[in-house]
Amino acid sequence: MVEFTDADREAVYKAIYARRDIRRFRDDPIPERILERLVDAAHHAPSVGFSQPWDLIVISDEETKRAVKSIADRAIAAAEAGYKEPRKSEYAALKLEGILESPLNICVTCDPTRGAPHVLGRSSMKRTDVYSTCLAVQNLWLAARAEGVGVGWVSVLYPSELQELLEIPPHVKPVAYLCLGYPEAGFPEEPVLETEGWRERLERETIVHDERWEAKTEPKNAADSAER
Amino acid sequence: MVEFTDADREAVYKAIYARRDIRRFRDDPIPERILERLVDAAHHAPSVGFSQPWDLIVISDEETKRAVKSIADRAIAAAEAGYKEPRKSEYAALKLEGILESPLNICVTCDPTRGAPHVLGRSSMKRTDVYSTCLAVQNLWLAARAEGVGVGWVSVLYPSELQELLEIPPHVKPVAYLCLGYPEAGFPEEPVLETEGWRERLERETIVHDERWEAKTEPKNAADSAER
Repeated sequence: MVEFTDADREAVYKAIYARRDIRRFRDDPIPERILERLVDAAHHAPSVGFSQPWDLIVISDEETKRAVKSIADRAIAAAEAGYKEPRKSEYAALKLEGILESPLNICVTCDPTRGAPHVLGRSSMKRTDVYSTCLAVQNLWLAARAEGVGVGWVSVLYPSELQELLEIPPHVKPVAYLCLGYPEAGFPEEPVLETEGWRERLERETIVHDERWEAKTEPKNAADSAER
Repeated sequence: MVEFTDADREAVYKAIYARRDIRRFRDDPIPERILERLVDAAHHAPSVGFSQPWDLIVISDEETKRAVKSIADRAIAAAEAGYKEPRKSEYAALKLEGILESPLNICVTCDPTRGAPHVLGRSSMKRTDVYSTCLAVQNLWLAARAEGVGVGWVSVLYPSELQELLEIPPHVKPVAYLCLGYPEAGFPEEPVLETEGWRERLERETIVHDERWEAKTEPKNAADSAER
């Protein structure tokens, strides 16, 4: 049986704690063998009924990336328009995506027909196909961190436009749009949104409940309070 | 900056490849310090707009576990009733959950109001809160593997009944119900559903697309074909 030494265990935690959402990339490419390892890591995620509902569309074409960037630009502008000050200015100052700078983009999709109609374990919880797809993303993200490869998840995108652009069939849904590359300035020690004062990490006590749901008071960030 | 040695990188892949869905547990408890490390690993997942929408309800009470088990028993029976032979018998022979045997159960929920109304990055992709919650589950699952702790995700459950039982408020949704404990017979080399002939792992070529969605033919398993 596979055993884990203390050093192995620490390495797994290191990947978990040192993983960051990266938005500034160098332009040197990711070697093919490393990309394959990342894809294989994603593909070895757990999935409901072993359905493996994920697909990965690997994009390096400049024209496609520019088209995705233009979708993101509009989604970012739309979100900005919805914020009140001081959030609006803070939001506008953030770099939210590195679509063009990153050498590779990967769109991770979910195909609910994979292994259907009777996917084991999905009849009572319908969206476990999407949940499985997300587990694959996290495998890829952690493997990438261990490889020194940065990953940024771009969610300021209109999925239906992405679907059309990438010719994804109607029954398959884009779940994640990832930018991959070597980070321009390494991996920050803290999440950028924490460093920038956007939001703080919650205390563990806030999110752990004993036996039953317990009402907790969520500490409000200064900027959140101002917004409300 | 945190650096990864080759050995560190291999350890991360080891956790990814040796992780399994465990359904048979020994009854010895998980030490509190290990549980805390697993919770912290989950809590350090990426989340949309750093919203951290997850909560973890840690359950060890026998009565609660028996109530959850009875929900699962009905969901399992309902799914079995829907299968044709030979899938029906194959399904009936599988052990699908270890709710009572495992010393700890954890219900992971998603609170869409955390950091709302304007969660950065969620306006254009609404369910990124649930996606973030799933990333937390995978962090916990991989950390558990490195600790030698088995995790089994039970999705044959009716979430609305779970919600009522655990007194989860209506706006918060149960995403994952996990059983945790030391595996009775170690971690199998392959997923149980693969060993049992339920379904095979897809070839990498089946799930990777170059630049655009490419139509692929999904190899059918014998049992799937029989079912259709």
